[in-house]
Amino acid sequence: MKATIERATLLKSLGHVQSVVERRNTIPILSNVLIEAADDGTIKLMATDLDLQVLETIEAQVDQAGATTISAHTLFDIARKLPEGSQVSLTAAEGKMQVVAGRARFNLQTLPRDDFPVIAEGELPTKFVLPAATLRQIIDKTRFAISTEETRYYLNGIFFHVADDVLKAAATDGHRLARVTVARPDGAEGMPDVIVPRKCVAELRKLLDEIDGTVEVSLSNTKIRFDLGSAVLTSKLIDGTFPDYSRVIPTGNDKLLKIDPKSFAQGVDRVATIASEKTRAVKMALDRDRITLSVTSPENGTAAEEVPGDYSASGFEIGFNARYLMDILAQIEGDSVEVHLADAAAPTLIRENDKAAALYVLMPMRV
Amino acid sequence: MKATIERATLLKSLGHVQSVVERRNTIPILSNVLIEAADDGTIKLMATDLDLQVLETIEAQVDQAGATTISAHTLFDIARKLPEGSQVSLTAAEGKMQVVAGRARFNLQTLPRDDFPVIAEGELPTKFVLPAATLRQIIDKTRFAISTEETRYYLNGIFFHVADDVLKAAATDGHRLARVTVARPDGAEGMPDVIVPRKCVAELRKLLDEIDGTVEVSLSNTKIRFDLGSAVLTSKLIDGTFPDYSRVIPTGNDKLLKIDPKSFAQGVDRVATIASEKTRAVKMALDRDRITLSVTSPENGTAAEEVPGDYSASGFEIGFNARYLMDILAQIEGDSVEVHLADAAAPTLIRENDKAAALYVLMPMRV
Repeated sequence: MKATIERATLLKSLGHVQSVVERRNTIPILSNVLIEAADDGTIKLMATDLDLQVLETIEAQVDQAGATTISAHTLFDIARKLPEGSQVSLTAAEGKMQVVAGRARFNLQTLPRDDFPVIAEGELPTKFVLPAATLRQIIDKTRFAISTEETRYYLNGIFFHVADDVLKAAATDGHRLARVTVARPDGAEGMPDVIVPRKCVAELRKLLDEIDGTVEVSLSNTKIRFDLGSAVLTSKLIDGTFPDYSRVIPTGNDKLLKIDPKSFAQGVDRVATIASEKTRAVKMALDRDRITLSVTSPENGTAAEEVPGDYSASGFEIGFNARYLMDILAQIEGDSVEVHLADAAAPTLIRENDKAAALYVLMPMRV
Repeated sequence: MKATIERATLLKSLGHVQSVVERRNTIPILSNVLIEAADDGTIKLMATDLDLQVLETIEAQVDQAGATTISAHTLFDIARKLPEGSQVSLTAAEGKMQVVAGRARFNLQTLPRDDFPVIAEGELPTKFVLPAATLRQIIDKTRFAISTEETRYYLNGIFFHVADDVLKAAATDGHRLARVTVARPDGAEGMPDVIVPRKCVAELRKLLDEIDGTVEVSLSNTKIRFDLGSAVLTSKLIDGTFPDYSRVIPTGNDKLLKIDPKSFAQGVDRVATIASEKTRAVKMALDRDRITLSVTSPENGTAAEEVPGDYSASGFEIGFNARYLMDILAQIEGDSVEVHLADAAAPTLIRENDKAAALYVLMPMRV
């Protein structure tokens, strides 16, 4: 193969591609990017970790079609260091690829294209289209709640499922739950329940920053593909059963606190300064329109802050993990948030209002 | 004590103070900052790690003079999170300090002021004044060469000494040497040779960013004090003998390369992309006005780049650690640098020109 590409175009695509490639690989070819130049003046770049695969298509001057694989991080580092505005020529032959730009010349080891593992998508019978903005919103409002506990692998992603005429996305780590509900896109009816892994979510979110428009989603019960135009992301789904999370969403919480999420979060952050690193426990005492946040630390002392809020139910005290509470409050865009409470031991429901697409459940802590 | 301080003033000073305090301390009081409010409307904040001590003086409304000590990182974190523009009231009594700002109220553990270890400066017979800009230049052009090998503790700092009518500052790790020469300030004549430890250099450099003006330097053969106005830094000196580095500065290198430091450094950076992480070895082949940088890596392949330069001596090849070479080239501000070479095994002298205050020596590598 022989092709010439603008450095900026190559760098941007390699940026997407190399972040899928793990830094350490026991299988050498997984460190590589597959580069395939076609006679129609396009180059395809593909990287995989065997669970997640990204395919980028860029325009180039192709003098000779062909394909090879080369270290993704090395090529990315080279492209990064090449002078701005330079043209990069790639020539592959006999187990080597020559990369030339300006006065710099690299002769790099390649591995055969045929050894590169491509994820077999199989049939992807469910197909629908989502606006990029909707997909961004779904991810942003749920991903923070994804569990990092590897033993609970079925919680290591975002759960998507359809119910009646809505598409729901949920994530939980057992301490907090985040759920976003959007209108069911055409074609999603009858789709299988799927759990999209954390790494796929992270890479998808990065790519979504660069597009407006729409994303075509195709899936089966084992694979999902996101087609963003120049980039296509294909991922295996998590093979597990997401718990029936709807059972933990409280429906009878009768104590309502309405509060400004910003000053609430800032107050929590301040008193949590002296909380122990391990529990980050903050106590919230509710009294008629008087919310007092406090922390007592055996080593550091005590902290307390009153935060204004609307509350007219009977007074009581409840404890939360400050980090979890702040994560949720950071998702609220308006200047008011509803906190639906029951008692000191019951899950608490948090949402902007009853029309909001996103809903959060937070388990209390004993304080 | 009882005093009220503007949050911004407190935050800035605590920023200086807390960076001297180590994150982990076996002696509890070393985690604390000493706060001393005086009737003249000033508060002194002091922190120490027993080798380095910083003293900040800020203005405040002092209602009752007194002193106590309190966790530096906790107070810094609190000040950071308090609302902008707020007034912070500090009240200490009976083993506690109350910190109040806006609606937030903290009651923090203190330790007695009398237990706080203050570095005894003793007599500091040598006193001179240096412009802050000169001190910044000395540090910036030498600190990168300070050794991090703890076994060679006498290289873990910048060596200052006077010779005739100049003050010289030098740092080396055995692979490279950096030396800056400035006019000897009045009062520095007869001063002892001193090695200023790396941590003192780092804290001093941060403080220098905030002042113009001058710095008063006072020293004995065991201690040094930098008085920057509102901040005073006192450090123990490294108790060791700095090697006679002048012996390694080559004087007979007869092969001169003149080259643009930027394009030279960029070329080195590019070819070094494929160099092994461990050695970072780059080969430089010099021929009449033709400088070729190259790297050969058993895993990755080869890289080469020609860089334009003025060279008229006989051709030869020499190897350098790319990182070390780039560190030095990054110090050169002009658009030309002199590289004085002898042969592939001899130390190489690098400087902007023969009038430059800074001079660098780089040991070659076998490639």
